[in-house]
Amino acid sequence: MANKLSTKLEVEEFLASIDTFLVDCDGVLWKGSEVIDGIRETLDYIRGLGKRILFVTNNSIKSRRQYLSKFNSLGIKSSEEEIFGSSYATAYYLKHILHFPDNKKVYGVGADGLREELEQEGIQVCGIGEDNEAITFDGLKTIQPDDTIGAVVMGMDINVNYRKYAKAFTYLHHNTECHFIATNEDILDPIAGTVFPAAGAFLSPLTIALDRKPIVMGKPEKPMIDCIVKKYHLDKSRTCMVGDRLNTDILFGINGGLKTLLVLTGITQESELASEQAIRPDHYADALSSLYYLTR
Amino acid sequence: MANKLSTKLEVEEFLASIDTFLVDCDGVLWKGSEVIDGIRETLDYIRGLGKRILFVTNNSIKSRRQYLSKFNSLGIKSSEEEIFGSSYATAYYLKHILHFPDNKKVYGVGADGLREELEQEGIQVCGIGEDNEAITFDGLKTIQPDDTIGAVVMGMDINVNYRKYAKAFTYLHHNTECHFIATNEDILDPIAGTVFPAAGAFLSPLTIALDRKPIVMGKPEKPMIDCIVKKYHLDKSRTCMVGDRLNTDILFGINGGLKTLLVLTGITQESELASEQAIRPDHYADALSSLYYLTR
Repeated sequence: MANKLSTKLEVEEFLASIDTFLVDCDGVLWKGSEVIDGIRETLDYIRGLGKRILFVTNNSIKSRRQYLSKFNSLGIKSSEEEIFGSSYATAYYLKHILHFPDNKKVYGVGADGLREELEQEGIQVCGIGEDNEAITFDGLKTIQPDDTIGAVVMGMDINVNYRKYAKAFTYLHHNTECHFIATNEDILDPIAGTVFPAAGAFLSPLTIALDRKPIVMGKPEKPMIDCIVKKYHLDKSRTCMVGDRLNTDILFGINGGLKTLLVLTGITQESELASEQAIRPDHYADALSSLYYLTR
Repeated sequence: MANKLSTKLEVEEFLASIDTFLVDCDGVLWKGSEVIDGIRETLDYIRGLGKRILFVTNNSIKSRRQYLSKFNSLGIKSSEEEIFGSSYATAYYLKHILHFPDNKKVYGVGADGLREELEQEGIQVCGIGEDNEAITFDGLKTIQPDDTIGAVVMGMDINVNYRKYAKAFTYLHHNTECHFIATNEDILDPIAGTVFPAAGAFLSPLTIALDRKPIVMGKPEKPMIDCIVKKYHLDKSRTCMVGDRLNTDILFGINGGLKTLLVLTGITQESELASEQAIRPDHYADALSSLYYLTR
């Protein structure tokens, strides 16, 4: 069973051990469109101690710029530099870890936010916003292998269709050098008060037809940690991942060699921590705002 | 190692043991748009012996009526009653095995041929030809559970999109009584001189998001045999599946309790039969036309 932060002393010792907080958003800062009690004061308090906060999200639809407007609309202070989404991570990974060549293009299946992040890193993008029309069987004859495509990137795309799958498949099938990257593997996304299939479900026609797995950027996989650590020059031993889900957020922290803090304001219930099989965070707390309230 | 039919006596003994031949098409009758040598004479010869021939295909795009035009264009005699495609099998299975109620509808993801076969069995169909427009995130709010949908059927659909996945997912997710049927699980289809992802690849966003497997009609699964045996009142011990692929056609025959004949005019090479792991047909021959040429 993990250690619950429940006294002022415990929180102060914990805060003293951490320089950077990587913070999941839904279930930690807000639930749907409701800000969780005490969150604004808590973020101010942590920043006031000289610590860095980065918001880490698997959302691949929005660029950091677009995601910032969600923070603004909820009155939570943030900046683009503090936000690390899976589309930005993908762009950063291509540019700074794979050193993606200037003369190659990315074929993207995803939303405008993915295109924006890739282009901001100086990467040429095709597909996104171009291939939304359905194709015919005759049209398939026009799809040809293309060695100028250096990577296929797939994220959440409400305009997904056969044309995109056929192109992505062709570029990867005929060129094993072509990188295959997924922004995230979330199977379901909460939308409109229910759930619908998400990016991780829509990857599978490609992975099955190609018999090939992509590099996955989003939590709980490790590449996004590599990007964050490289960009901000973080000391992993003094960095803590804060989240509400054991199998994404906490596992992400563990996979990345970080400290972990589970909060109980989202998906995970306290009772689940007692299970032998449970993924074990270093610490847990009723809420992120416990760090603030317990130290008053 | 299976027994090769190579003498007149062997072929005559084999023919005497079989009343009905279930015959795969591509690789057995034709390759692409080329009829394999001697096929027309062979079919005439087998029919002349008073035996029944049924053409069994996983193609889910075409109705039997549409598929017949392929036979006609190649000058191979056939009739709608002799053709058994995976879309027709799906319609037959719903009507005659599941006894699909008249007041329920099928939500179809597939081609016009699938709609035609379902409607010919008197089954109400929605989705096919209706949901080809892309959807928006706002549009997802209009997708609601619908208990009048009694089955979701998925086949090859070049107009596949998020709207269809979201509807199919919603009908199945909120109603565990709703049947989930796939016409076939072929991963790749040969198109335009190369391959593209096929129905079996496009199933996976649903199977993953729902954590549920469909009933699969196409080879090598068993339901299509059940339909064929029921419709034609066949004696399985005197029925032979003829095909060019071990892991679809021959396995289909074995799964269904039929005799099996592999022909070497398509995918499988004679050398593969020597492997210990190989699926083992009862007999094999250089070609289906060996049955004709060896008995001259």
